[in-house]
Amino acid sequence: MSNPIRVVQYGVGPIGQSCLRTILSKQPHLKLVGAIDIDPDKVGKDVATILGQTPETGVLISADADEVLSSTNPDVVVHTTSSFLDRMSDQLIQCARAGVNVVSSTEELSFPYHRHPGIAEDIDRAAKEGGVSILGTGVNPGYAMDALAIMATGVCNEVSAIEVHREVDAGLRRLPLQMKVGASLSRDAFEEKKATGMFGHIGLVESVRMVAKAMNWPVDRVDETLDCVISPKRVETPFLTVEEGKVAGIHHYAKAWIGETPVISLDLKMFVGAEDPRDAVLVKGDPPVDLVVRNGIFGDTATVATLINGIPQVIAAPAGLVTVADLPIPRAFGTRAG
Amino acid sequence: MSNPIRVVQYGVGPIGQSCLRTILSKQPHLKLVGAIDIDPDKVGKDVATILGQTPETGVLISADADEVLSSTNPDVVVHTTSSFLDRMSDQLIQCARAGVNVVSSTEELSFPYHRHPGIAEDIDRAAKEGGVSILGTGVNPGYAMDALAIMATGVCNEVSAIEVHREVDAGLRRLPLQMKVGASLSRDAFEEKKATGMFGHIGLVESVRMVAKAMNWPVDRVDETLDCVISPKRVETPFLTVEEGKVAGIHHYAKAWIGETPVISLDLKMFVGAEDPRDAVLVKGDPPVDLVVRNGIFGDTATVATLINGIPQVIAAPAGLVTVADLPIPRAFGTRAG
Repeated sequence: MSNPIRVVQYGVGPIGQSCLRTILSKQPHLKLVGAIDIDPDKVGKDVATILGQTPETGVLISADADEVLSSTNPDVVVHTTSSFLDRMSDQLIQCARAGVNVVSSTEELSFPYHRHPGIAEDIDRAAKEGGVSILGTGVNPGYAMDALAIMATGVCNEVSAIEVHREVDAGLRRLPLQMKVGASLSRDAFEEKKATGMFGHIGLVESVRMVAKAMNWPVDRVDETLDCVISPKRVETPFLTVEEGKVAGIHHYAKAWIGETPVISLDLKMFVGAEDPRDAVLVKGDPPVDLVVRNGIFGDTATVATLINGIPQVIAAPAGLVTVADLPIPRAFGTRAG
Repeated sequence: MSNPIRVVQYGVGPIGQSCLRTILSKQPHLKLVGAIDIDPDKVGKDVATILGQTPETGVLISADADEVLSSTNPDVVVHTTSSFLDRMSDQLIQCARAGVNVVSSTEELSFPYHRHPGIAEDIDRAAKEGGVSILGTGVNPGYAMDALAIMATGVCNEVSAIEVHREVDAGLRRLPLQMKVGASLSRDAFEEKKATGMFGHIGLVESVRMVAKAMNWPVDRVDETLDCVISPKRVETPFLTVEEGKVAGIHHYAKAWIGETPVISLDLKMFVGAEDPRDAVLVKGDPPVDLVVRNGIFGDTATVATLINGIPQVIAAPAGLVTVADLPIPRAFGTRAG
């Protein structure tokens, strides 16, 4: 790999902009060499302008991904364009063909083998042909409800079941997240919108499948349920107000079964006014493990961290499609101690 | 690798016997094909006899390591003979020359590059020549105060310091551990024995160095202190009684510095009567991470688990000396869900 590592940012939405800030802050380890986005309001502008920073970086946002990939000689692309693999797998394959490693925030890429086996195969083949690795990661999926759960089992002789509880106070998060969980809606409005598939966390089933694969458990089926959490009181956030009796957020549940026995259950609550935010893993086994991240992992900044921390990992990984469960223990990269 | 994986147990002391029980319980994934120990009371006996189990396994304990390694065609050795690398590096090199992977409980092997650079180089060379991998692991070092701390930083954009607190209730552990921490001694007797170097946890500095390496931090020095914990009350264990005012156990502390700033501190208390046993990692960073394993990781069984769970990892690893920080996220192996 180059020193510094040469990075192209692919997607300059809110998460992409946070990635850009972190990439620029990680000198001398990282060097931003390109940025790709199709938004006409952004194309042609210096990255610093979009970020509201000075001085200019000299890196202009371009809509021509092929040109950026071929002219800037990057080691890695940080990819943040979509949650859904079928909408952007061509972007990943484009990077692979250009011989560039990819760390992507695409939730469905975190463990794509079950929902999109054909796409997973295409990406894996393109990555191997390009001699690069492609990784989907993030806090969730990618860490809190899968990698951390896998890690917790590492000290167990026997495991009968794994339970993960993630409770997020959506009131502390950015507005798009508060809207994504339906905060302030009436129950009826929530149910209507839910029917259109617009709510729910993307990637919960991917996390279940990743854990099942790591345990080598022959899961028969995975159930998924999505409900709203009704607020017991009036709650104000910097962006909106949830009245008592209105929707505070979502309760999303996925459970893996072997026969009639539930073996993995992932329980995710994201709502305004959560009083016990945490990431908890309970491994029922010998010995049992009761692990908790108190106050939870703060998603907005941590998501960016998992992507940037994935850069050296994906560069060092064997060529192909990889998951966080295939790679060395996640760790912070390019930090300043003290 | 073979299916089942063919395993030789090297060292049939208390930990080795626990490993043997687990290996025998992990059918059809593992097959015990040999056992090595030099204790004349054990040599020639069936492994089942030593374990007090029936039926016989057909595997007799042998003192002739070379013969066992060459005649049983193992994939991996589970090695539990010593805490100290200079006493047994020849055993590891012997395994490497026989073309057999090794998972070892030797604490100093967990991160040997600093204390024993020459031995580390010899082992690495032998392992590469033999086309095998050699790993030192365990709960501590190997998980609680290093791998878990590294993992906790995976969601951080910035890390300024890492603090790990492990508090173990030695009263729940086996007698050798209670003796190892000096439980029931007078303070004077403790200080006398401490001067001979007989107390203290082996591997704390190895854990510090492993974390520093994973963070890529240029640590200037590592301090280590060892004190006794005095019992504020009378405590009885199944094996001994600690009177009020006598030694309950140890407080072992290691701290890594960059200049005048402490950046990694590992704080280990193992004593009879501990009221808040836990494994806690505090990452000072952005975002901060406050992770705790409530009630702590139960060492006696978990140590065996880390060794057995390391088997598929070490078989899949690239040839050479490896550490847990180089390998995929630790995980349970060969478990029965449900």
